[in-house]
Amino acid sequence: MDAPHAERALVRRDDRAAYDWATIFAILDDALLCHVGFSVEGQVFVLPMAFARIGETLYLHGGAASRMLKVLRKGAPVCVTVTHLDGLVLARSAFHHSMNYRSVAAFGTAREVIDADEKARALEVLVDRMDPDRSKVARAPNARELALTRVLAVPIEEASAKSRRGPPIDDAEDMALDVWAGEVPLRLVASERVRDGAVPRANLA
Amino acid sequence: MDAPHAERALVRRDDRAAYDWATIFAILDDALLCHVGFSVEGQVFVLPMAFARIGETLYLHGGAASRMLKVLRKGAPVCVTVTHLDGLVLARSAFHHSMNYRSVAAFGTAREVIDADEKARALEVLVDRMDPDRSKVARAPNARELALTRVLAVPIEEASAKSRRGPPIDDAEDMALDVWAGEVPLRLVASERVRDGAVPRANLA
Repeated sequence: MDAPHAERALVRRDDRAAYDWATIFAILDDALLCHVGFSVEGQVFVLPMAFARIGETLYLHGGAASRMLKVLRKGAPVCVTVTHLDGLVLARSAFHHSMNYRSVAAFGTAREVIDADEKARALEVLVDRMDPDRSKVARAPNARELALTRVLAVPIEEASAKSRRGPPIDDAEDMALDVWAGEVPLRLVASERVRDGAVPRANLA
Repeated sequence: MDAPHAERALVRRDDRAAYDWATIFAILDDALLCHVGFSVEGQVFVLPMAFARIGETLYLHGGAASRMLKVLRKGAPVCVTVTHLDGLVLARSAFHHSMNYRSVAAFGTAREVIDADEKARALEVLVDRMDPDRSKVARAPNARELALTRVLAVPIEEASAKSRRGPPIDDAEDMALDVWAGEVPLRLVASERVRDGAVPRANLA
């Protein structure tokens, strides 16, 4: 996308600038969903997953029967990508159309979380990201549920952030064209909550 | 995510159900952004890209200097994934928390689009997806711009759709818990357009 309004940040595990980590963490923490890429026998798969971040580690989870998690827990290299689409950029020329966005691609090797405390903490953060303090409100997982849930950790070995913001950048000779140009801001918006009909009457929110 | 409310569709190039293609096309066409996964020397990358669909072919584009497109045009197998996050599902138990979503993973092998007509058509559809008929309004690409733009086609060889919708599915023994449960609907919303300050005064939208 257009260079003039694009920004980049890059971190490596042993060669880091605090500023760049902050940029990367902010983009990650603003997202509920990531896309996880991995390879199985030469075929690349990209799947959407919920995730949580604790420090420089990303956590994924799923059912113990999940074929994907079974593959990943063997120490597979993964790419975890998060993207926010912040707007459409309508330029005077078709060529300079673009999108405003913030994106992070984080690279690491997955490991299964076996430690009970780390697993419990990761699951709490996963739930709390959906609603603040939700893990204190909802019934905590029992032993059977914990056994049915697999949690993977992906320590970030390297990550890069890319973003674009701002108006279109048209060529000087196009500026007088009779074409509307500008931005269409986009954002993910929550609408009114829908109570599950089965909530007891004594317990309406 | 929860099985009871999950739906799946799967198509293969030579073994297709029209219903499943319609499901997959609807999810693809509702998205402006996809995540493209590919492998370079054993490392998987997942990058966000704009895309267009014409029939059973997905089109990607970027600068001719793009390292990613240079890799892909050599006939790389790719996975193009699109996900809509439609809502958060807050259950009475932490274990049954989930998300409502619609997702498609499409698999194919990228080829560079050389044919001038196919390239022009793909670029038109890419621009029109941002705003209806935008390709008729904006200045069309000239020869220099077309030379600077690389377009890749990914004919869909196989694709699968997954989705979840509806309320949480709690265990019977949790239904009387004093915990609010339900859905938080989410959607990508456009806010008021921001005119580029450089639009001539005679040409206000």
